[in-house]
This record gives sequence, C-alpha cells and structure tokens, in this order.
Amino acid sequence: MIHGTLLIGSADVARAQTFAATNPATGAALEGAFALATAQDVADAAALADAAAVPFAALSPDARAAFLESIAEEIAAIGDDLITRAMAESGLPRARLEGERGRTMGQLRLFASVLREGSWAQITIDPALPERAPLPRPDLRRRHVALGPVAVFGASNFPLAFSVAGGDTASALAAGCPVIAKGHPAHPGTGELMARAIRRAVAAHGLPEGTFSYLNATNDVAGLLVADPRVQAVGFTGSRVGGLALMQAAAARTQPIPVYAEMSAVNPVLLFPAALAARAEALGAAYVGSLTMGAGQFCTNPGLVIAPAGADLDTFLTAAAAAMAVNAPQDMLTPGIHAAYQAGVAALDGHAAVTTLARGTTPTGPHQAQGAVFVTSAQAFLADKALGHEVFGAAGLVVTVSDMGEAATVLAALEGQLTATLHIDAADEPAAAALLPILERKVGRILVNGWPTGVEVCHAMVHGGPFPATSDGRTTSVGAAAIERFLRPVCYQNLPASLLPDALADANPWGAPRRIDGTLSLA
Amino acid sequence: MIHGTLLIGSADVARAQTFAATNPATGAALEGAFALATAQDVADAAALADAAAVPFAALSPDARAAFLESIAEEIAAIGDDLITRAMAESGLPRARLEGERGRTMGQLRLFASVLREGSWAQITIDPALPERAPLPRPDLRRRHVALGPVAVFGASNFPLAFSVAGGDTASALAAGCPVIAKGHPAHPGTGELMARAIRRAVAAHGLPEGTFSYLNATNDVAGLLVADPRVQAVGFTGSRVGGLALMQAAAARTQPIPVYAEMSAVNPVLLFPAALAARAEALGAAYVGSLTMGAGQFCTNPGLVIAPAGADLDTFLTAAAAAMAVNAPQDMLTPGIHAAYQAGVAALDGHAAVTTLARGTTPTGPHQAQGAVFVTSAQAFLADKALGHEVFGAAGLVVTVSDMGEAATVLAALEGQLTATLHIDAADEPAAAALLPILERKVGRILVNGWPTGVEVCHAMVHGGPFPATSDGRTTSVGAAAIERFLRPVCYQNLPASLLPDALADANPWGAPRRIDGTLSLA
Repeated sequence: MIHGTLLIGSADVARAQTFAATNPATGAALEGAFALATAQDVADAAALADAAAVPFAALSPDARAAFLESIAEEIAAIGDDLITRAMAESGLPRARLEGERGRTMGQLRLFASVLREGSWAQITIDPALPERAPLPRPDLRRRHVALGPVAVFGASNFPLAFSVAGGDTASALAAGCPVIAKGHPAHPGTGELMARAIRRAVAAHGLPEGTFSYLNATNDVAGLLVADPRVQAVGFTGSRVGGLALMQAAAARTQPIPVYAEMSAVNPVLLFPAALAARAEALGAAYVGSLTMGAGQFCTNPGLVIAPAGADLDTFLTAAAAAMAVNAPQDMLTPGIHAAYQAGVAALDGHAAVTTLARGTTPTGPHQAQGAVFVTSAQAFLADKALGHEVFGAAGLVVTVSDMGEAATVLAALEGQLTATLHIDAADEPAAAALLPILERKVGRILVNGWPTGVEVCHAMVHGGPFPATSDGRTTSVGAAAIERFLRPVCYQNLPASLLPDALADANPWGAPRRIDGTLSLA
Repeated sequence: MIHGTLLIGSADVARAQTFAATNPATGAALEGAFALATAQDVADAAALADAAAVPFAALSPDARAAFLESIAEEIAAIGDDLITRAMAESGLPRARLEGERGRTMGQLRLFASVLREGSWAQITIDPALPERAPLPRPDLRRRHVALGPVAVFGASNFPLAFSVAGGDTASALAAGCPVIAKGHPAHPGTGELMARAIRRAVAAHGLPEGTFSYLNATNDVAGLLVADPRVQAVGFTGSRVGGLALMQAAAARTQPIPVYAEMSAVNPVLLFPAALAARAEALGAAYVGSLTMGAGQFCTNPGLVIAPAGADLDTFLTAAAAAMAVNAPQDMLTPGIHAAYQAGVAALDGHAAVTTLARGTTPTGPHQAQGAVFVTSAQAFLADKALGHEVFGAAGLVVTVSDMGEAATVLAALEGQLTATLHIDAADEPAAAALLPILERKVGRILVNGWPTGVEVCHAMVHGGPFPATSDGRTTSVGAAAIERFLRPVCYQNLPASLLPDALADANPWGAPRRIDGTLSLA
C-alpha cells in the first residue's frame, strides 16, 4: 500500500506540501500525493539514525546478514504491485524491472554472505612481545567498524537496484550503518514500497527504529541531510551537477565526510584493426544494441567509440546505421531526462565538426528517446572538450582516428571513466597491451570483446573510476567491495579479554580470516 | 654532503632564493643555503613523476620491495652525519634520533614484506560461468593499482620517520606511486640527506628518475604541488590550519584528490575510580613522563586527562605536580612551535576557570618548553570549546568530573581523536565497557593501562581517527595498512591471458592470497 508519507523510523509522517509522480510514457500524473520532508523531518531522521548507530553496529555479522536476507524476502513479498508501480513511474518494461528486482534481492544476499565470511572486518592481531628489546610490544588488534549514519540518494535509472533498497543502502546496512534514504522524485511510490519492506524487516528483527528512514525532499531540504553533523557518509548515483553539489556540501561541513557519488562517463570503446577487419558488421549491430539498451540510460552506456578510419570502419558504420535506422524508440525515465537528451542530441546534430550518421525510428510517445549515432574526427574531438561530455541516453559518438597511436592520444585526453572496452583479435594484442597502462589510470573496469552495459554483482566487480566518473576512484558502488566505503579501522591496545570486541577475541568466534603477526590465516 | 639544492629527478637544481635552518637550541642559523623551488620546479617534478608513474607501478612486488630495502640501506650508510645534522636542526637528543632512524628503516622494510606477501593487491577472481542462465557470467578479475604521483609534506616532529623518507613516502612508494617530497623548512639539511639516500636507491635500481623528487618551497609554491593535475594524492602531518588548507586546495581542483592529513588531537586519558584508588601516585608520575616526553611534541601526546574528583585524584595531582616541578625543560623543534606553545600555555594560565597545577623547571635555552599541568572542571570544559584544542607541547589539562557518567559527557563533546586511553582495574571494567562504544566512534586507537605516546609500526596499528584528528578517518598513516591510501581497484573483464597483468594470472606468479569466487585462499 502506498500512503505518500515519509517513513521516519517507525512513524508515518504526512506533510502539507506534496508532489505527484509522472508517468513518462504518457506525461500524465500518477495517483498518490507524496509528502515532502521539512528541515525538522531531516533532523528527526538523523537523531533516530544516530541513536541506532551503536546498537545496529554491535549486531553480530550473522544477525545483520539475517536482517539483509529478510529485506530481500520482504521485497519479494510485495509481489507484482512493485513491478506495476515501477513500470508506471519509470517507463521501464516489465522484464527489465523483474530482472532488476532479482538483482536487488541478490545484492542483499551477497552482502549477507560477505558479512558471514568476515574478511570485511579486516581482523588483524599483533600479539604482545613482552621480551622484545629495547621496548616490549603491546598487544595490538585492529578491526573495521561502521562509519555511522549514511544518507543514500536514490538513482532515477535503477528504481530498484540503485535506489531506496539498492546497492548503496545494502552495502551501508551491511557495514552496520543506519541509512536515511532520500527517494528519487521520479518514483516515489516505488520508493515507498521498498522503504516499507525495509521497515518491516527492521521490526521483525527487533532493531532500533532509526536503523532506516525514508524521505522525499526538495534539493534544499535534502542538502540539510548532507549538512547534518550526525550523518557520516553519503551515497549517490546521478548527474555530475548533483554529485558535485553534494561533494561541495560535504567538504564545507565543520567535519567533512566522504561522498560516494557515481556521476558521469562516456565509457570509451576501442575498435582495433584486426577485430574490425574480422567482424565490422557484427560489431556495428552489437554496438547499437548496447547503446540503445534501456534507452541508453545506463551509467556504463558506450557513449564513445574510437576506431581507425578505413573501409572496415565504414562497414562498421554502415551496419550501425542500419541497426539504428530500425531501432524503436523507448520511453525515458523522466520528462527532465528526456529534455536533457533532446538538448544533447541537438547540440551534436548542430555541431559543425560532427556528422549525424543515423537516427532511430520516430518516437510515438512524449518522452521517448530516438537513438542517434554521430561521427567526428579525432582532431575535432580533441579541439572541443564538450564532445567528451556524457549525453545521458541512446546517443553515441564515433571518433575516427588515423591509427591506434592517435587513439591513445584521444584516450589520454579523456576524463576519468567507469569502463573502457577493447574489441581485439589476436593480431591486435600488442597494440592493446600498449594502451592498457593508459586505461588502468583512467577507468575502473577494462573489458575485452564485450559491451560495458552489463555490470555483474560479484566480488571482483569495480563500478567506479577516477573523477568525474565517481567522486572517489578508490571505491566501487557495485559488488562486494562496496561495503568498504562505510567502514573505518579501530585499533585496540592491551585490552583485557573481557573488554575486547567479539571479533577480536582469541577464539575467533566469528570464524573469520585473520592476519596474526602479519600472516593471514583462514578460519 | 649537503648542497642546498633541490633534487628534481636526477638533477640538482640551485635557486637564487634560499633560506637557512635555525638551531632551536641556540637560535643561531646553521650552515647551508637551501634553494626554494619555483613554480617551474614544481611543474618539472610533477612531469617527471607523471612519466615515472606507469613504469614504477609496473614493477613486480619483489622489485619494489628490494628498492625499499635499498633506501633503508642508503639511510644507514649516511652514518652519523644524519644524526648530528638532525640534532642541530631539531633540538632532539641523539638517542631519540637514533631510535627514529631505526624506525624509519624498519618502516621501509615492513612495506617490503607487505609487498612480497601480496594481500595489498586484493587479488579477486570471479571465473566465467558460461552456462549460467539467463546470462552467462564473464571472467572478472580485480586488483589494486597505484593512484599515481603523491605529494608528501614532511613533518617537523619526526624529521626522519615522518618526513622526506618517512611513513608517507614509504607507503606511497610501496604502493607504486612516485613521490614528490616537500621538505619541512625546519630541517632542510636532514631532508636533503634523506632525499639523496632515496635518489641513490632509485639510480641503483635503474628506476625512472621521476620516481622521487625533493623540494623546499614557500607555502604558496608548495600549494602549486597540490594543485598540479598530475599529482593524485597528498600526505601530510602537521597543524590543523595547514592540513585544512591542503584539504581545501585539493577539493578545489578540477579533479579533487584525496588528502591524508594528520592534524591535531588531545588524546583523552580516562582515569577510572578503582585504578585511581589502586595507584594514583604511580599514575601521576607516569602521566608527566608521557606528557613531557620529547617536549610533548608527539601527535599522540596525552593532552587531556578526565578523572573523577576526590581524594584519589588529589593524590594523582599531587604526584603529577611533584613530577612536573622537577621536570627539566627541553628544546622545542622550532622557534615558531615554541612561540605557539608559549601562547597556548599563557591562554590556559590566564583562563578564569583553569588552575595552574604545576610547571616544569625554568628554561635555560631560548626555545625550551617549560612543562605545565592545568586543572579545570567538566562544567568549565564543556562551556568553552577552546579548552579542547591541542596545545602542541608538554602542556596537559586535567578535567575533573563527578563520576564516569560525566566523563562520558565530556568525551561525547570532544572532536575526533587519534587515541583514547583507559586506566582501569578489574572493578572498573563495567564502566569502561559502557564507554567503549562512544570511544569507537571518536578515536582510531583505544589503549588500556598504557600511554598513547608509543606508536608501534605493525600490521594492527591505526594512527588515524575521525576528523579533525585526521582528514580521513578511514585510514592510518602508521603501519602496514597505510599502503591502502595510495591504491585503487581496477577490474578486468574477459581479458585474454596474454593481456592480463601478472598479478591476476591463473598461475598466481606473485604467490599472493587470492579470493576466488568469493573464497579466500592462501598462496
């Protein structure tokens, strides 16, 4: 049931100021009046989160894992109401949202398994050396603890997997941090359904009510969340402008806090000569498939192709143009995102040094993305930084280079990226090897002979990358390592056994891997 | 040999603008005219570091470990010239500097062992699952790579162990990051000797010259180092004002970069009732010993004691006063630090709510710290935030509380700290247990029945803490985990074996621990 209230701890809070969601497929308002939080609501949620921080962090890994698993079960229990509301609010198709629901539950279960395995706590013990000369060594033990309350800003483009109960929330809760989720205004009903699922799990496990709160808010009020001294970290997925604003707000606090913002990327794809010669036509069709998937609304959308000019590239472009010419338009997530896409495409279309290679078929709805492929030269690309900026949606730019040496020059001029993709054959490997060191300094994930739009939720994933792809290239927002963003180390020196945290007890009650006197040992 | 030049890669660079060091024990200028870097020198060093970044990061762990060990050997080879120059420049006694030299070499060797062990690379492999439905999983492999060039700002208070070749430099080089060290102006001769030792090791290992450069610079020119787009991280130990300036400069860059600044702390010491009853006199004497060690010029100096009023605390204070009354003054590091100490002590001495319990004996040199112990009430302490600020040097403030509940209130009012110390007996353990959750959110290291001024260089150490103790409480600047500050993850998807980095090869040529499909395995 959708009530339109804020969920502040265990309280449902109604407010006079409300907003409605828009169905992007029709432009019509959807049912439901959703409360907008006041400054006091933010303060109340922060106070509850602060009160929950110590008891929630003190849970055993198994207890917190069971809580995460319960959230997954509560999400499943919402049933089809979740899918139909998310479809109406996002314009995304059923199959995509059903898959995304599975991904969301899978993320929660992954972090449950991460908690039980125990490496996240980085248990490190340097036993006392009482006989050491000239000074004895005390007993020193280290573990990682939760940062404290985390503000999570929901993303528009993953209304399930990267919004209220998405990856940021799952990893922060896994770390032992209470979460205050600020829902994305494009899907407030979906957000509320997910928030209620989390709240049911909080209640079922007898956790402090401040473990989780859910707010909708204007940007000004949401900014108070980042400024609140009780909030200790921020998770965000969205635009560069939005992410930069959060970074500045966090840096301006009396106590600066980390912001994990995943912002923008064009995710370069490099087509190498032998690969192009072998399968230019197939690559062209596959490129358009990746570019237009989900109306191109993926963080890892392949916005930029870099390839050597010549007959093989012509074949690629012809195939891409043919695929794009029959590509059906898809609803975009919000009217605002559609408007920004239209503006971005118009700018490329009107650019003197850019050629429009192909467009998708004509839209039939008010906020549909008509796909687009553009072509420009390396020279033009290097001369205009704006050509390297993301156009969020199904628009791609192909930069033609004279050879892979010039490709390296183009790569070196790019800002930080989430991904880089190499299409190679065996004969291309030496040239690819020469580019790898540039790419390793520039991106979070390097793919060979695939497309970047699939982001596996697993242990090895890095969904991150140097600024401005993310605010903090030392981290990932997808995969098991995302938990590390919300932890910090504490060292205990000469504590009697009775005062030591369970995690650090000699008997290893958590059964976790430990580093003892520098040597890693399994449980 | 001290030449007074900048060391920019393999070049010795002289500049017209120079400065001399001051012997703080006498106030006299020391021999040597030390070049101050120009903006071009900073740019030159950054360009060389940038050029060195890829080849230096590509070294095998064993090759980089051998380089670190050579630096240690080169430091040893300087011989007594290093100690005598450091004594003259810092006012620190021989025994302390000899110990610090050993610590500096030990740090380098610790990171060599960390490199060879291999966990630092966080090798993580999720093998392909080609049969998985509905979609196969690609082969995904993650490792940690160097951030790129690091600017290290030398500390005044550890002219060897946290300056040019100190912990920040050692951990950044271990991570594979070229280092540009900006020497502290108080010990330019010492800095140059250390810089030349590193340069000899760079040459002996045939490394790119930009692997290491050494500059002296005004604050304005040093700021250019933080602003240079090729610099990717900053290490700093010093004042809160200095650290905040670096944080702001780094946040204002087009590409913000991490700053690891270790700034200020008062390191609360809590005396619990049973411990006080059992050994108040011994605690009083030991407290003054820790407070005045090295003229109190340690980051972890116990600047604040919190203890319940009563006869036992009176005994403690009497013993502390007696110890302080015969405490000999010691030279401080610089005239400026001495002046700041004098001002801080005068402010406490003149504070209406603060009593001066005892002073050390009268100084005989121009820049000696005369120790001081002050006493105030919890009420007064809570009413004036300035009483919680660090006075760098041998000055301590004892805050009397009514009971350990009021002690918790005082603790909760403190900013982030490097350490907290508990003096307890068995009967105090329940009260100590009640305070631990507060302390875990507030400090980086919790000690029982010791003093915070010893910082062991080991695997479990945390020399860090929430802001403003450091700029980034997720990290430590001392101990093995310091290397993590200069690394970031990169994921490789479906790379052919011929393109995979050695670290990620199936055969595990590094012999490192790896996580494969979520399961950690030893080499």
